[in-house]
Amino acid sequence: MSQRIAFLGLGLMGVPMAENLIAAGQDVTVWNRTASKTDALVALGAQAEPTAAGAVANADVVIVMLENGPVVEGVLFDSGASDAISSGAIVIDMSSIPPGMAKDHAARLARTGVGHIDAPVSGGTIGAAEGTLAIMAGGEAATFEKIAGVFAPLGRATHVGPSGTGQLTKLANQVICGGYLAAVAEGLVLATAGGADPTKVREALMGGFADSKVLRLHGERMVQRDFMPGGKCQIFLKDLNTVLDSAGAMSLDLPTATLIRDLYSETCDLGAGETDQAGVLLAVEARNPDARLGDGPDRRP
Amino acid sequence: MSQRIAFLGLGLMGVPMAENLIAAGQDVTVWNRTASKTDALVALGAQAEPTAAGAVANADVVIVMLENGPVVEGVLFDSGASDAISSGAIVIDMSSIPPGMAKDHAARLARTGVGHIDAPVSGGTIGAAEGTLAIMAGGEAATFEKIAGVFAPLGRATHVGPSGTGQLTKLANQVICGGYLAAVAEGLVLATAGGADPTKVREALMGGFADSKVLRLHGERMVQRDFMPGGKCQIFLKDLNTVLDSAGAMSLDLPTATLIRDLYSETCDLGAGETDQAGVLLAVEARNPDARLGDGPDRRP
Repeated sequence: MSQRIAFLGLGLMGVPMAENLIAAGQDVTVWNRTASKTDALVALGAQAEPTAAGAVANADVVIVMLENGPVVEGVLFDSGASDAISSGAIVIDMSSIPPGMAKDHAARLARTGVGHIDAPVSGGTIGAAEGTLAIMAGGEAATFEKIAGVFAPLGRATHVGPSGTGQLTKLANQVICGGYLAAVAEGLVLATAGGADPTKVREALMGGFADSKVLRLHGERMVQRDFMPGGKCQIFLKDLNTVLDSAGAMSLDLPTATLIRDLYSETCDLGAGETDQAGVLLAVEARNPDARLGDGPDRRP
Repeated sequence: MSQRIAFLGLGLMGVPMAENLIAAGQDVTVWNRTASKTDALVALGAQAEPTAAGAVANADVVIVMLENGPVVEGVLFDSGASDAISSGAIVIDMSSIPPGMAKDHAARLARTGVGHIDAPVSGGTIGAAEGTLAIMAGGEAATFEKIAGVFAPLGRATHVGPSGTGQLTKLANQVICGGYLAAVAEGLVLATAGGADPTKVREALMGGFADSKVLRLHGERMVQRDFMPGGKCQIFLKDLNTVLDSAGAMSLDLPTATLIRDLYSETCDLGAGETDQAGVLLAVEARNPDARLGDGPDRRP
């Protein structure tokens, strides 16, 4: 069953996601703060609206894909868009925002009969373009069932629990990826310091238990010293601080998460906040100045 | 070109590796401390010798797959086997031993014209059985080239650098796997503490950047609370202590590796040294007693 979809936020992730919904035959109305971003999608069959309130007015489903929690709050609530959403409609917030804020949004929308699913993603712009995002969905199971067809062209959605747990699972994802990144950086530094060729080390480890997307993608960036983003360290540090805020609110002691946050903080303190997440290598190397991977220059923003 | 291979050490890894060499048509002579382990391989076409010195006497290539450094030292040198190896032969030590010891073994064998490659593996008994081990090889490039055909039935061998760097790369592998394991444990605890279903969280993360063999295999063991080994925490802790010894000898500061060692030390202090490496979850849970994954009982040795 085709649903009328409003799509708010056409950034690096939003554009390919909206394209995939249009290609799947969905009825999509787009809005973006910079209106010119809507032109290419209109050419593919979308409608465009100049205001978020206008875009959501006739929607069955409102997808939000914005930069962070305050931006979502501004576009969805402060602008008045939330008042324009029909009772019975469902908001899917695919932005990455703090779990507590997602729960608050769900509660506020519920007062006017609007459903809410927090559904952040992992997989980056490649996953968005290929429609293979890992989608972590929190909210009521019945609400999740109603929008399964909307998720299908975007990737693989999993309902993980009640409101806010989609965002919390995204934070778990960040902890896990951060642990992978720091461990790959330290492993490569260890082997290189003892005379191994870091490019060969990464190759040797692929296929064993150390294999991962992070070893393949970010490990290659490390050994090539290519720190062009990708996901930037300073954004990742913000996520890791949100992890520790959320963990602290639950009185959790997560030593690995804490250390990873500190390593990304060190990376940003080195002036490398704009580099790719693989830039955590720079913090490990700063602690070990005799163990640099490779002789070439760094490629960085 | 078929080479006469002596294979020393028929444990959980050695047996399937020797089987794969025999199946590939190699001329294999086996030796094991407990001689009865050789019977099944003789039935497949191997020859058996009652002493290590006897096994290596006519070999072009001697493969060693023993428990640890001291055992390798005992079998290869203290028993006198090294004196029986022909000049021009090559010892491939696929055991996991300290990098410094591997370099020492290479130097001692070189005095009698015997080559040495340190070539530890990752991939476990499954990789050994399937012939898909990740093999990390250190030593002279010309020596490595001569034995490429021996490695082929066992897995994918990569020459990473001079003598000892194969072992160092295995240690890098352990650092990386340990980082993955600790991060997966903390991520699952974080999401579960906030009300998410840990089984669903793991499913949701697969396919995203957090995907890895560790998330798939050890993550499943964590959410099912199945801590039957697999690789035991106490063996892994020994490896991580070797990591820190080797790092210390090079004056390296590796904070993630240090923390992971501490977490595995905590796991063993909880009496869980015999559990699978996934048992690091028990240390994270011990720090966070209100955040247990799942209600079921632990399955453990």
